[in-house]
Amino acid sequence: MAKYIQSIERAAEILKLLARGTQPYTLAEISAALDLPKPTVVGILRTLQSVDFVDQDTETSRYGLGPGLLHVGARYLDGNELRQKAINWSDALAARSRESVRIATLHHHHALVVHHVFRPDDTYQTLTVGELLPLHATAIGKILMAYGGVLPEEIAEKATPYTPRTVASTEELTDEVARIRSQGWADEIEEYIVGETSIAAPIRDRQGIVVGAIAITGAVERTCTDGRSRMDLVSYVRDSARAISRELGFIPHA
Amino acid sequence: MAKYIQSIERAAEILKLLARGTQPYTLAEISAALDLPKPTVVGILRTLQSVDFVDQDTETSRYGLGPGLLHVGARYLDGNELRQKAINWSDALAARSRESVRIATLHHHHALVVHHVFRPDDTYQTLTVGELLPLHATAIGKILMAYGGVLPEEIAEKATPYTPRTVASTEELTDEVARIRSQGWADEIEEYIVGETSIAAPIRDRQGIVVGAIAITGAVERTCTDGRSRMDLVSYVRDSARAISRELGFIPHA
Repeated sequence: MAKYIQSIERAAEILKLLARGTQPYTLAEISAALDLPKPTVVGILRTLQSVDFVDQDTETSRYGLGPGLLHVGARYLDGNELRQKAINWSDALAARSRESVRIATLHHHHALVVHHVFRPDDTYQTLTVGELLPLHATAIGKILMAYGGVLPEEIAEKATPYTPRTVASTEELTDEVARIRSQGWADEIEEYIVGETSIAAPIRDRQGIVVGAIAITGAVERTCTDGRSRMDLVSYVRDSARAISRELGFIPHA
Repeated sequence: MAKYIQSIERAAEILKLLARGTQPYTLAEISAALDLPKPTVVGILRTLQSVDFVDQDTETSRYGLGPGLLHVGARYLDGNELRQKAINWSDALAARSRESVRIATLHHHHALVVHHVFRPDDTYQTLTVGELLPLHATAIGKILMAYGGVLPEEIAEKATPYTPRTVASTEELTDEVARIRSQGWADEIEEYIVGETSIAAPIRDRQGIVVGAIAITGAVERTCTDGRSRMDLVSYVRDSARAISRELGFIPHA
């Protein structure tokens, strides 16, 4: 017996392909991208449509993701223990720091955002739950890289230099990981988006394993003094990470 | 050849089952719920795990939704044309009404929330994107019922009476649908949550078909006068719905 069921693997590949695109795909594009004959792809697409995971545009005949996925995907969040335990502490951190807060977990060499609290002010902000952030250019990603056993060379290989300050070489990332592990927190100043910074700390479970990270993100003029992250903000982030770790059952060494 | 691929249908059923639960499921529970032998279920679960759509808890061996689904589900929103066209108008409506705004589409006898703008103030609010709202007890749901060809008797059959004011009989819902279709908007005063009200209007596409609804939700003391929805708020909501319909290519009759 094969280890995995091929048609389900292919269905998942199609869904992930549709999730990568910015536009719906034609049947020919999907069949070419997966290197599968059109009749095979049609059978899978038709089934995915019948369960609302795929939508076909009636005018263009192109395929995109369906609404059934949104609901199922959103329900993942309700079952995410890290997120449940972190919600109150994230609100408190946003109130204390007056900056936006994110919680993320490691997912295929990216930081998957599972919770996002807006900066407590009147401005409109875009929600980033479900977004994948780069490991090398965000503080939350650096924490997950440093404690998640991800090799800096694997990340450096494909690292996008988002700004002139992005750290993207194996050597620099290796140094960064060592520094983060010794100090217990990470930051990033305009390494992902010019004008923005972030500060993050690790969240541990009852076995002491780092299962996620919490970060604040804000404008450089508010979060830095003399070109460095404000240490009062760093300690707010670390306090929150420790509090969430305790909720998850982590007992720090005396 | 069968119309649909059975293993994909079963995989989708498992994902939807896991999405319904509040706790992860045991293998026995999944196998009983789907009426399938355990070895069949194990094969599907193992494949879903390999593509990150399912997670197995290492301590309890129970199965829950995986992080891959969150990302794919969130990407559905980026491809949703209604949401794209509605984003700016939703922000404007939130600013004008000073209340929270939702956009939803009809999905299996529920209103699926595809966009949510928080009330513009400092309070912490929970994001409801991906949530399913009842058709009979929310203004956004009533619009989708009235214009979506949903029969009131089908809804009344399973309608939960959320509050003493919830409209839940076939007769009342039929009257409500007729009233909504003649006036072109819907409201609800403490029919879903005590102390809360909502006001909604339909969004049409270029063919004139109602593809969604926009609503504001707020505290009864802010949104009502003399026990009825404030007509200035009703006109704000209707203006926004018309503006979004125009963006979608709808040309109103002269």
